[in-house]
Amino acid sequence: MIASTPRPRLALTLGDPAGIGPEIVAASIAALDSDAVRRITIYGHAAVLDRGARAMGVRLPDLTVRGAAVVSTPGQPDDASGAAQVAWLEEAIAAARRGEVDALVTAPISKTWARRAGLAFPGHTELLAERFGARDVAMMFAGPRLRVVLATVHVPLAQVSATLDADRIVTVTRLLARALIRDHGITAPRLGVVGLNPHAGEGGLLGDEERDVIAPAIARASDELGLEIDGPLVPDAAFRDAANGRWDGLVAMYHDQALIPVKLVDFEAAVNVTLGLPIVRTSPDHGTAYDLAGTGKARWGSFAAALKLAFEILDRRKAI
Amino acid sequence: MIASTPRPRLALTLGDPAGIGPEIVAASIAALDSDAVRRITIYGHAAVLDRGARAMGVRLPDLTVRGAAVVSTPGQPDDASGAAQVAWLEEAIAAARRGEVDALVTAPISKTWARRAGLAFPGHTELLAERFGARDVAMMFAGPRLRVVLATVHVPLAQVSATLDADRIVTVTRLLARALIRDHGITAPRLGVVGLNPHAGEGGLLGDEERDVIAPAIARASDELGLEIDGPLVPDAAFRDAANGRWDGLVAMYHDQALIPVKLVDFEAAVNVTLGLPIVRTSPDHGTAYDLAGTGKARWGSFAAALKLAFEILDRRKAI
Repeated sequence: MIASTPRPRLALTLGDPAGIGPEIVAASIAALDSDAVRRITIYGHAAVLDRGARAMGVRLPDLTVRGAAVVSTPGQPDDASGAAQVAWLEEAIAAARRGEVDALVTAPISKTWARRAGLAFPGHTELLAERFGARDVAMMFAGPRLRVVLATVHVPLAQVSATLDADRIVTVTRLLARALIRDHGITAPRLGVVGLNPHAGEGGLLGDEERDVIAPAIARASDELGLEIDGPLVPDAAFRDAANGRWDGLVAMYHDQALIPVKLVDFEAAVNVTLGLPIVRTSPDHGTAYDLAGTGKARWGSFAAALKLAFEILDRRKAI
Repeated sequence: MIASTPRPRLALTLGDPAGIGPEIVAASIAALDSDAVRRITIYGHAAVLDRGARAMGVRLPDLTVRGAAVVSTPGQPDDASGAAQVAWLEEAIAAARRGEVDALVTAPISKTWARRAGLAFPGHTELLAERFGARDVAMMFAGPRLRVVLATVHVPLAQVSATLDADRIVTVTRLLARALIRDHGITAPRLGVVGLNPHAGEGGLLGDEERDVIAPAIARASDELGLEIDGPLVPDAAFRDAANGRWDGLVAMYHDQALIPVKLVDFEAAVNVTLGLPIVRTSPDHGTAYDLAGTGKARWGSFAAALKLAFEILDRRKAI
């Protein structure tokens, strides 16, 4: 059986069967070579994946597909599709916990329908942290021009300042440094930590989190990691300069500080990476897109990029 | 004298003589044709401007220059340079208030040295509002790919939510619509108002300002202006879509929400425009850059773009 299960292996979930997941997975797989295909297990159902392939006009190779069947209609999520997306994801997680797969690449799920199916988590990231018992995880976005990790994620803007915490900034900086070194092949990463306020607080005139929280966290992270770390950087210059090559990775303080520039310069090529898990996990940076489901018009570049990055990380880790 | 004072006229200030102002003004003027040059008055001093021209290696045409002399050294601001930048700006404002000039294009000043010279304003925009008695002004950034007006400007991030106000959002939306129609030649502008929170609040899960403040302001502005206005838009998609042509102008809720994307996609071509004044006012989107002053390496694209936009707006208003 060794020949049929080459390592390291990747689990792909189809996501919500009523969304664009089956289409973007099918298109991405159809573009792979046969060696890569043999390393993949799909968590979903063959009939749903075949429907996705037909919509995209692609021909699928022979595949390993696991998971229960579901009757679903593109663009029309319901209790059945909601339950199926959760079941497939849980099966993929269980396989990863048993050591059968080394990476997880997930197509989008609907949080609303996941909740109705009894899974009340804010998203994949938080669920995976819980299932793997990982205390410190972080959300990173990796694209050709920007790599950014988030110190806070799904927090109302008014609560970002109160949520910010030096320990957390040190943790995500450590996770970012480790990912750049181990997974992206950058031996001495140039890191920057972005400020919170306009002009990075302008010496206290426009906020004091830079002085009280961010600068001390930078000093601690720099000591711990033995790396020079720049910051607190002026936010409106930091992303422009990083996109132009000045830093290999940035630590952003809040969701839109990172996501506005990432989607602006790396859209379709930006991949969401969960740092801090015992497995590799990547996903596209978009949602279920019910309005496009079944039309064959879904853009599958971000899923293909997520799959490609997972392969690259696995192969790099294997080589070390 | 009519031949020597063709209208409409533009006042250019040299800004801080110890900064890059004299260099970027000199380089921008050297690139103008003689008709344009005859419409300009420089508020500064000829010796300082000549030094800037020499640093940039450009030859200046005959110019009207007004303002007191100052002894200053590039890169070394002091009380004399701080006083000169304020005096030249005040003279330009006074000329505008007397109706002698129709537009003001300002090179960067140092707020710190302005304060030491007795001028305690947060910046040009607030000073101009006060001097012209303009109640409702707004800061807009205009570049080739993005045009954005700010609902809040120099506010610590933690105070943005408490500072947001429906009246203000209506006001800046009105100023943006008027500017796009009158100054940018867009007869039926497509406007978007960006949300405050991640995912524009996700139906209240991630914040309620969208529902309580922003959506009502959009409805009022739409009624008042007779325009369809989209929003509250998901911030991380809004700027990408606007840069790709979906909207002619956006209303941003806070400084970095606007400035991060503007500097990322329109840098050097982005112009700061003050809306709501009785005159046209533009400026570059950068500061005094003391580290570059005197080297001839200052990038003058943003000042040249500010000057070009001021000419365009004046000519468009004149044609109406």
